[in-house]
Parts: sequence; C-alpha cells; structure tokens
Amino acid sequence: MARIVMKFGGTSVADLDRIRNVARRVKAEADKGNEVAVVVSAMAGVTNQLVGYCQSLSPLFDAREYDAVVATGENVTAGLTAIALQELGQDARSWQGWQIAVDTDGEHGKARIESIDGEELIERMKLGQIPIVAGFQGIGPDNRITTLGRGGSDTSAVALAAALKADLCDIYTDVDGVYTTDPRIVPNAKKLSKITYEEMLELASVGAKVLQTRSVELAMKERVRVQVLSSFAEIPGTMVVDEEEVVEKEIVAGIAYSRDEAKITVRRVPDRPGIAAAVFVPLSDANINVDMIVQNVSADGTTDMTFTVGKTDMARALQTLEQAKAEIGFAEITSDQNVAKISVVGVGMRSHAGVAGTMFKTLAARGINIQAITTSEIKVSVLVAAEYTELAVRALHTAYGLDG
Amino acid sequence: MARIVMKFGGTSVADLDRIRNVARRVKAEADKGNEVAVVVSAMAGVTNQLVGYCQSLSPLFDAREYDAVVATGENVTAGLTAIALQELGQDARSWQGWQIAVDTDGEHGKARIESIDGEELIERMKLGQIPIVAGFQGIGPDNRITTLGRGGSDTSAVALAAALKADLCDIYTDVDGVYTTDPRIVPNAKKLSKITYEEMLELASVGAKVLQTRSVELAMKERVRVQVLSSFAEIPGTMVVDEEEVVEKEIVAGIAYSRDEAKITVRRVPDRPGIAAAVFVPLSDANINVDMIVQNVSADGTTDMTFTVGKTDMARALQTLEQAKAEIGFAEITSDQNVAKISVVGVGMRSHAGVAGTMFKTLAARGINIQAITTSEIKVSVLVAAEYTELAVRALHTAYGLDG
Repeated sequence: MARIVMKFGGTSVADLDRIRNVARRVKAEADKGNEVAVVVSAMAGVTNQLVGYCQSLSPLFDAREYDAVVATGENVTAGLTAIALQELGQDARSWQGWQIAVDTDGEHGKARIESIDGEELIERMKLGQIPIVAGFQGIGPDNRITTLGRGGSDTSAVALAAALKADLCDIYTDVDGVYTTDPRIVPNAKKLSKITYEEMLELASVGAKVLQTRSVELAMKERVRVQVLSSFAEIPGTMVVDEEEVVEKEIVAGIAYSRDEAKITVRRVPDRPGIAAAVFVPLSDANINVDMIVQNVSADGTTDMTFTVGKTDMARALQTLEQAKAEIGFAEITSDQNVAKISVVGVGMRSHAGVAGTMFKTLAARGINIQAITTSEIKVSVLVAAEYTELAVRALHTAYGLDG
Repeated sequence: MARIVMKFGGTSVADLDRIRNVARRVKAEADKGNEVAVVVSAMAGVTNQLVGYCQSLSPLFDAREYDAVVATGENVTAGLTAIALQELGQDARSWQGWQIAVDTDGEHGKARIESIDGEELIERMKLGQIPIVAGFQGIGPDNRITTLGRGGSDTSAVALAAALKADLCDIYTDVDGVYTTDPRIVPNAKKLSKITYEEMLELASVGAKVLQTRSVELAMKERVRVQVLSSFAEIPGTMVVDEEEVVEKEIVAGIAYSRDEAKITVRRVPDRPGIAAAVFVPLSDANINVDMIVQNVSADGTTDMTFTVGKTDMARALQTLEQAKAEIGFAEITSDQNVAKISVVGVGMRSHAGVAGTMFKTLAARGINIQAITTSEIKVSVLVAAEYTELAVRALHTAYGLDG
C-alpha cells in the first residue's frame, strides 16, 4: 500500500469522456489498496478562453481579478471528477484552494505555495475518500484567490505530495514520459525510464514542456518522487529521482530546444566599467528576464553586447533600452526573432570532458553558426538561426549516441 | 445620494461587449454620487452547460459537487465585470460568496440565504469602491459552496440590498419591466409603472419569469424597494412596492400563464377519510410539489382525484403512485402534459367581487373548458388545454380592460 498523488493535465480532462477515463484510472489505483489524492487542471482550452476574456477587457488587467476568473476552470474539473468517481461507487470530494487551504505568498498571477494543510485530507484518505484538488490555485494573505502561473498544477501536485507525505507523485499528461528529445523531430528518440531532478530541471527550463520548472525545483527540494506518464496508455512513464537512483548514467540525458527567445544586440557601447549594469538594470527593473549574454572583445574603445529575452518581452525590452540610450551611449540596437536555443543536458558532464566540444564540432560539421553560448554544470546551450533547429537537434541526438 | 444594488442577469452579461455595457451603466450610477454594489449572474448559456456536464456524468449527481461546479459561472462574470469597471477608471473588486460571506442553510442546489455580512462592503463603498458580488451562491455550514436554485441571483441581489440597507435594488434584465401579460402573446400589453409585492409574488409563482419567487418573498419581508428594468434601454422600469404606494389600483394587475405543469388523474379511488393523504403523502415524501388539486364528488363510493405537478416531475410522480397502488386502491391513472395554467392576479380582487366570474364567462364564451381551478386572496388560476393558451390570455387581457 502506498500513498499516491495523481495529477491530470488539461488534455487528460479535455471532455467528459476523458474525465470518466481519469475516474477509472484513479479508482484502479484505489482498488489496489493505495491511498489516493488527485490534482486536476482546467479542461483543455478553458484557461486560454478565460485569459482571453481578461485581456480583451483590459490589456493591463488587475491580476487579482484575473486569478479569480481563471481559477474557476480547475474548480469545474475538480467537481466533475468527483461526480465521475462517485458514479463509479468511489467516495470522493472536490477541494478548492481556499478550502484546504493552499496558502501562497499572494503574488497574484504567479504566486508561490507557502504551505498546504494536509491534515484533513489525510484523515479522509484513511477513511477511503479521495480528495480531488483544484490545481493551479491557492489563497493569498488578502483572502483572495491566487494562481501559480501557467503549468502551475504540476507544482500544486508536487506540493500536495509533500504535504501529504506521499510515496509518489504521478503526473499524467499527453506524452508517455520524458524523451531524449522531442519525438516529433527525432522519431527514434528514446523514452528515459529515469532522469535526475537536476537534469529534469535543466530540461524544463530550456524548453522541454513536460513539467513546470518550479514543480521540479520543489520536487528536488522536498525529495518527492515524481513520475511523468500518459493518461491514455497504461505503461510506465519516466521517474524523476535522486542521482544515486540512476544506475546507468548516460553522459547526456537529452537534447532540448526552444524557439521562445529573441536575440537583441546593442552595438558600439563604450567599453567601460559599469556598462553591463547600465544595459541590464533597466531591463531588470522592467521585470524582463535576460537569458544568454555575450560580450565581444573590445575594439576602438567600444564593444557589442548580445543577449536573449523571451519573445513576448522583446518589444518592451527594445523600448526600455531606447529610453536608456543617453545613459548607455550605444550606436544602435538590432534584434532577431529567428533564433533557437539548443541545449544538451546531462549529469554525466560533470565527470566527462569534451561534451561541449562534441557539440561545437557537430554543429560546425553541418555549417551551423553559433551565435551565443551559455553553460551550467550539467548543460550547454547554444543560440542558432531558427531554420537549423531540427537539423541541430537531430545531429546532436546522433552525436551523443541517443538514437534508439 | 442613494445606496443602490444593481443586479444583471445572464443575457445582460452574455458577452464581453455586454459586460462593458454593464460597466458603463454601473459607473454612470456611481458618477451621480450614489454608493453602488453589483450582483451578476453567469454569462448566458454557461450555467446550462455546466449543469449539462453534471447530468451527463451522473443522473444522480452529488448536489455539493454540482454547486461547486455551477457557481463558477458567476465568479467568472464578477471578475470580468470588475476588470471592465477598472478599465473605465472606476475602483471595483469582485467578491465570491465565501469571501463576504453569504451564509446559507447548506441545502445544496436550493440553499436559502441566512445572513450576509455587509460590514466590509459598506466600508469599501463609502471609500468609492464598487463591490461586484457573484450571485446565485453562498457558503454552507460545511464550508462548501451552495447555490440558491435557478434564478437565485435575484434573491442574492435582494438579500444583499437588505444587508447593505440599500435604498433600491435594481434588477436589470432583458425585458424593460413587468407587463400586464406576455407581450409576445398580447402585443398591446402595458408596462406597469408599479406593482405590489403581493401581486409580483403571485405572478412570479404562476409563471411570469421576471423575478425568482423567493426574491419577491424576501423583498416583501425585508421591505426592499425593487425595480425591474432593461439593461439595454435607458428607461424607467417597474417598481415593486408596498400596496399603499400604488395610487391607481387596477382590479387586475396582470395575466400570467405557465406550460410547465402536467395533469394527473387518479381514477376511482375509494371515497374514504384519509384517501387524500394516501395519495399525496407518497408524492410529498418523494419531494414532488403538487399544485392544483380537484376532487370530484363521489359516485358509487369512489371518486376521481385530479392534480398538477411540474412536467419534469411527472414520470416520477406516476412511478410513485404506481408503487402506492395497493395502499391507495385506485382503478387507473391517466396523465396529460398538454395543459396550461392561466392566472389572473390583482390586489383589487380583495375588494371587488366578480373577478372569477368574469374569468369563467370569458373563457366559456370562447369555448374553452376549465379542467381545474385554484384561487388565492388575489389570484384565480385555471387549467385549460394547452392549445388555448394564447386565446385565453388575449381574451382575459381584453376582458379586464388591460389592453393599452
């Protein structure tokens, strides 16, 4: 007997038939003698519709009202899933964030969970009742509804698993696990049976959209065993675990890509101390996240600075820099949205030299120019022209011996 | 300066343009120097969709889950209306039932409001903030969401007006007031500038779908001045007021009709004491509401009993009676869904004889057979074949001098 949190994403609860399917999967786990709690997302498309309503009424909508509006999607799914389970003869009840309560820091639109009171849920689970928790939401110190940002139901599930001291947090989605890369680009990509928290975290943050980044951070911090698996196929998924649990360590676990970034180059800025601050502090003040940064060697006392920002932030970033032009003292700004970030991730890099070298050689052999590079302990990312995305991913997948 | 509760029904908030229109109407009231609170329904069609989901998943759905699901519709409208008002530069915030709180008796699916804590709303209104309250919902003693039954947002508005000690409760809807009868049947029906609580109550309960019956009861009990008016036209509506406020009393205020009832006849039941109880107690136990009851005079020791129930309850009523056949001892049961109830309502009946007589003569002159009759102090209702509905309503409208 185990205690399991099962989380179902929007495509898994997209319509009533799928909600019935979810109810069957949940009841099957309970019938094995497990204590089960469920976290659900909004039915696919609902959140986008509600977000669209808010944006149409006001481009600068009140995040507190936005939260009150969009959190309703999960409440609908939670109630319907409870009804579907009851129809199967299984005791179940829905819980909204404020009822549990899921306390958050009150940062509306992107709140962080601070604590979950799991006492009553645990008691009811012991009596055989399955709690169906509306994901993506909590309550702020102002007694108003907060949401956790897109993909936040993953974080709801992991936080609930920690609060309930669950043995496992199963994240049911429309893919059946974490692959060495996107199977739409590399058809013979392999499904990983296990991946470390660190690798999953890097993959999530560089574009693999399987799990919300914060949910992986939280799982790593709270040591929650997470499994990513399909709600449509009844086969094992990918376990996200501690590094020592992974026996056969590959040097590279996977290749990820992202087309969500844009490149900005600030040309001919004076090469003096404090110039990086002059460029990046205004962006930071405007709440714009800067990712890859490259500064060229100086020539004639000036230098070029290149960096990437999220595509949705690009217009605002350019405006912000133009406003700071007098202070920075650049000649011109150029931007390019036709870029892609390709990342190679693996804990094996720590002990194996030459991973970056293999990447650069592989891309050079295909005539792919590298526009920027960033590295972490277990990751190498490069920025390339977007048209090379598939070619680069395929070539690297082969080069690191990942083809199935 | 006055304190006003403005309530907008589903068609008044059916889409974003209409929500913007509502925001303009609300701001206009505030700009006149009034303190305003708003109650909103779900966007037209949303509640039906959510109810349909619940029914599809389980014909005998858990009313607590149903409430959690369907109450989301009003939460969406409340948040969106707050955003629309803010976009006009007007301070506003949404309130869900549990936040205020709107305490109810916990009868899920048809809860009654027990109390509303208006303190914080009044303070905020004094500071110029407009509360946008999600109608139709409250919270039960079990800390779960309750709903008030179809049309319940009217009751939310009246209860809120009472709690806020408002001078007026404006019910905005898709008609511009209360008419002497349905203008779709009688094009020259007149809009009433005033109607008494008692008349409105009778009209609401016999089929005029302008206001939820319970909201009128509550308005009468709490002496809340209610106005029914159009959210699309900027013209005065109909005031629902105390009898003494109506100066020019007509004998008959209006003619209503309902096609929502079905007639059941239990044939040849033994004419003995307790037989009515034998027939109606099982129906009452099955929570089936019986309306008009006619018992024929006895012949040969048996009698026929005719009564009406809501069409949606008819199948269940027949089943319940068949199960009690041994105890009741009837020969057979017949039923007829092709009936309509026509009602004549007016406080003037108290002091004027002959109102019922005029009704019976008028219908007889058109060859319309009366199948059952019920009366109250200010109302006469008759059951006729459904095909005569329009003819009966038109003839009575003329007979009582109501034609405009």
